[in-house]
Amino acid sequence: MPSTRWSHCGTEDLSVLQTIFWSAGASRNALAQRLAYSKSKANAMVAALLDEGLLDEVGLQESSGGRRAETLRLSETLGVVIGADLGATSMQVAIMRPDMTVLARHREPIDVRQGPGVILARVRGLMRELLARCGLAAHQVIAIGMGVPGPVDFESGQLVNPPLMPDWDGFSIRDYLREAFAAPVFVDNDVNLMALGEMYRLQRNLPNFLVIKVGTGIGCGIVCHGQVYRGANGSAGDVGHICVDQHGPRCHCGNQGCVEAMAAAPAMARMAIEAAQRGESALLAERLQSTGTLTIEDVAQASRTGDVAANAIIQRAGSLVGQMLASIVNFFNPSHVFIAGRVTDMGPLFLASVRQSVYHRSLALSTRHLEIQYAPLADDAGVVGAGVLAMQESLSRAGSVAGAGAGAVVGTGAVR
Amino acid sequence: MPSTRWSHCGTEDLSVLQTIFWSAGASRNALAQRLAYSKSKANAMVAALLDEGLLDEVGLQESSGGRRAETLRLSETLGVVIGADLGATSMQVAIMRPDMTVLARHREPIDVRQGPGVILARVRGLMRELLARCGLAAHQVIAIGMGVPGPVDFESGQLVNPPLMPDWDGFSIRDYLREAFAAPVFVDNDVNLMALGEMYRLQRNLPNFLVIKVGTGIGCGIVCHGQVYRGANGSAGDVGHICVDQHGPRCHCGNQGCVEAMAAAPAMARMAIEAAQRGESALLAERLQSTGTLTIEDVAQASRTGDVAANAIIQRAGSLVGQMLASIVNFFNPSHVFIAGRVTDMGPLFLASVRQSVYHRSLALSTRHLEIQYAPLADDAGVVGAGVLAMQESLSRAGSVAGAGAGAVVGTGAVR
Repeated sequence: MPSTRWSHCGTEDLSVLQTIFWSAGASRNALAQRLAYSKSKANAMVAALLDEGLLDEVGLQESSGGRRAETLRLSETLGVVIGADLGATSMQVAIMRPDMTVLARHREPIDVRQGPGVILARVRGLMRELLARCGLAAHQVIAIGMGVPGPVDFESGQLVNPPLMPDWDGFSIRDYLREAFAAPVFVDNDVNLMALGEMYRLQRNLPNFLVIKVGTGIGCGIVCHGQVYRGANGSAGDVGHICVDQHGPRCHCGNQGCVEAMAAAPAMARMAIEAAQRGESALLAERLQSTGTLTIEDVAQASRTGDVAANAIIQRAGSLVGQMLASIVNFFNPSHVFIAGRVTDMGPLFLASVRQSVYHRSLALSTRHLEIQYAPLADDAGVVGAGVLAMQESLSRAGSVAGAGAGAVVGTGAVR
Repeated sequence: MPSTRWSHCGTEDLSVLQTIFWSAGASRNALAQRLAYSKSKANAMVAALLDEGLLDEVGLQESSGGRRAETLRLSETLGVVIGADLGATSMQVAIMRPDMTVLARHREPIDVRQGPGVILARVRGLMRELLARCGLAAHQVIAIGMGVPGPVDFESGQLVNPPLMPDWDGFSIRDYLREAFAAPVFVDNDVNLMALGEMYRLQRNLPNFLVIKVGTGIGCGIVCHGQVYRGANGSAGDVGHICVDQHGPRCHCGNQGCVEAMAAAPAMARMAIEAAQRGESALLAERLQSTGTLTIEDVAQASRTGDVAANAIIQRAGSLVGQMLASIVNFFNPSHVFIAGRVTDMGPLFLASVRQSVYHRSLALSTRHLEIQYAPLADDAGVVGAGVLAMQESLSRAGSVAGAGAGAVVGTGAVR
């Protein structure tokens, strides 16, 4: 089966495969340089891996003077990975080649509170459907990566007290998907995977950055020393419950003034309803009357027409998110903060309010070179990151798959 | 000169030296295991390094059955490192062997605001005095490590806008000490060095922990993925200006309600003076009258006799530090938080208040296994860390010292 194609590889071969994975189209020379191998050693190793069908050469040049192909990538024949990105209100599933080229994808709205039974049945169905659309069978899946909007114990792959999805507490996503797929399943927090996705896009060139997702909740993915940082128990980045106002409204976590309770999508929708009811916006009032409620998409739309009340809501939320971020920036001093999630619909006004608040409250040295922008991969960061997780973990655990330990780690019969 | 004794070493030899440095008394077998070398390879390398006088064998056993010495350490003959730990109100200088055994040390009160001219003249004098006391000459110094209580640009070794010591802004500590010592000088924030000191004590066994120093200011040293994390511009851990009360008093940084302005030593002393003036503590009032002011040492002493007002001050400061720490714990999910600085005089009551506040405001998953305690190395963490920095940087830059780049990096004639 595809996932064992490199299980016999030694440490050096795996380093070559991992380096090629992370450098998307490396030349033999670049590879030799990165791994501090001689050119002849790199050439010999690449030749062997090409022979075994683990690598492909791409961009073969016309044979003019005998120059060789410049770039290498993990072989298409290895199979595919499946990435799934579950948010509170939407999900995306994608089938990807080992170099993260998307072969098929599907996005749809969900309500994650429907629980794992309903949601995962749909995810599993979509995975099968998309594979079929690509003419692929389940045994061609190397690994599955999945992001979920809650704290995950990375080793066990289970959610731990997830506030937005209480029914999922302790549920084994791995065991559920194992019934349909023999491939190993890796589960992580959705924002960690966004960070991993952006890290892949950047080919690891930024060692210290953050991805802040503002949607139904607020979470943060952390890249530190060039790796996703998950913390001692996998809950690093749980910034939604940082206090921004001791006298603020009570949050579902039990405390007062959490930034999530005051500035995430539901809080913004609530502010919009209140503004409409107070007669501060004819546009929002009209919309409220016609649909019975307001969403952040309504706020974004009103803002685009210059609605003053909508703009004030966006500025208030941006300012609160910036206030939380100022603490984090003082502590972590990242080079970049990428903002993702539904809030990106809010456009430049939200971003400007976040920036103003951060620059006001953070120390000069922390913000001198700080860039705050919307996440370049936008809505795709999570699903790409899920694919990267699947591929990265498969490549790094190959050694132990060949040995004895992998079954326990991935919780499935990875040795086939 | 001693500092070039390993400048000819290749990458593998340096790995052996670094591993022995970090594992304080490693056996040959442990070394082989850590570096994934065969026993025979490790033995051969160790034999060569012993021959060159770079390693010492210690704890030689009686020749009963031919068993060899169990443990190795960096050779005493390599020379010494000097560590200096400058706080806002005190400093410590120590002469240490390459395994961080302290040969001589001196601590004294200072006022860092006197500026680099006064303070560094005293530091330099103390370094010479302590060397003389050990019968050592300046050329036997391998490297100097120094911690300072402000943000440091690690590459240039200069302070950047240090709020507690404005006269030091942009001053080159390296250039100053170069006149007295040929050895390279490495400068870092004092709390980063405390983290490095605790990391050395722990032999790198905790990958993710924090050291919070509460003294004249409040700062945080971060260990992430087993390394000290300095951030994109070297200002990571600047937690003193995290806001804990938007309506709090104005801080010297210009913002309101910074934790440093409300809970560091000067704030506690101010609270004590106010309590004395309000007649809330006969003990504090008496002390105030006799000395004209109050310090946190007075608060600590009053608390030990059960003074209610002193206890309330300690609880309030602990609670505010805990509130700041709760944000950091939610974000970073460390396994341990070690508290250091003058505040440790406050005893168990301060620690209990910090803990209560953190457990109240942080998420369950972040605090499930979290340990909050006073720093085990206490007042010595900074000076040990300064020695570790000096040794670690010397060992890791040896390759480039042998090459061409080091002069630029360390800003001194390191190639001798």
